[in-house]
Amino acid sequence: MPKVADKSDHERALGKLGDAIRARRQALQMSQEALADASGINRTHMGEVERGKRNVSFMSIVKIANAMDARVSDIIAEAGL
Amino acid sequence: MPKVADKSDHERALGKLGDAIRARRQALQMSQEALADASGINRTHMGEVERGKRNVSFMSIVKIANAMDARVSDIIAEAGL
Repeated sequence: MPKVADKSDHERALGKLGDAIRARRQALQMSQEALADASGINRTHMGEVERGKRNVSFMSIVKIANAMDARVSDIIAEAGL
Repeated sequence: MPKVADKSDHERALGKLGDAIRARRQALQMSQEALADASGINRTHMGEVERGKRNVSFMSIVKIANAMDARVSDIIAEAGL
């Protein structure tokens, strides 16, 4: 595949991850601010992560999963990745 | 748990991810350099990722998984996370 398509795939992956994090959070009836605070992540950063606008680090994903009492691999599987 | 223990858990997660990436790569009889090149990731960066010394971004994990024809969630499940 050409590089452009690859890049677009990777960017789409961030969007899918953000959607899966938001779905989990909403299922827990947790606000985005509460999840940010429980994860030790900046609230603006958390909003960008859920919108797939930030290339989140693995350690931040681990913190977010921990704050929702979820396995990282489950969230990523829910993202279809 | 105190913050120090949390931090250590998160750092351990990076080590587990690196171990799982290395195990997959070795099962494919792929060199670290070949995986770096196929992922479009700097070779020094790839070495740090496998040693758990770098807080790798999600997009880099996606690229690494794609280069090994693996699902991201499978690699992370193999890391026990």
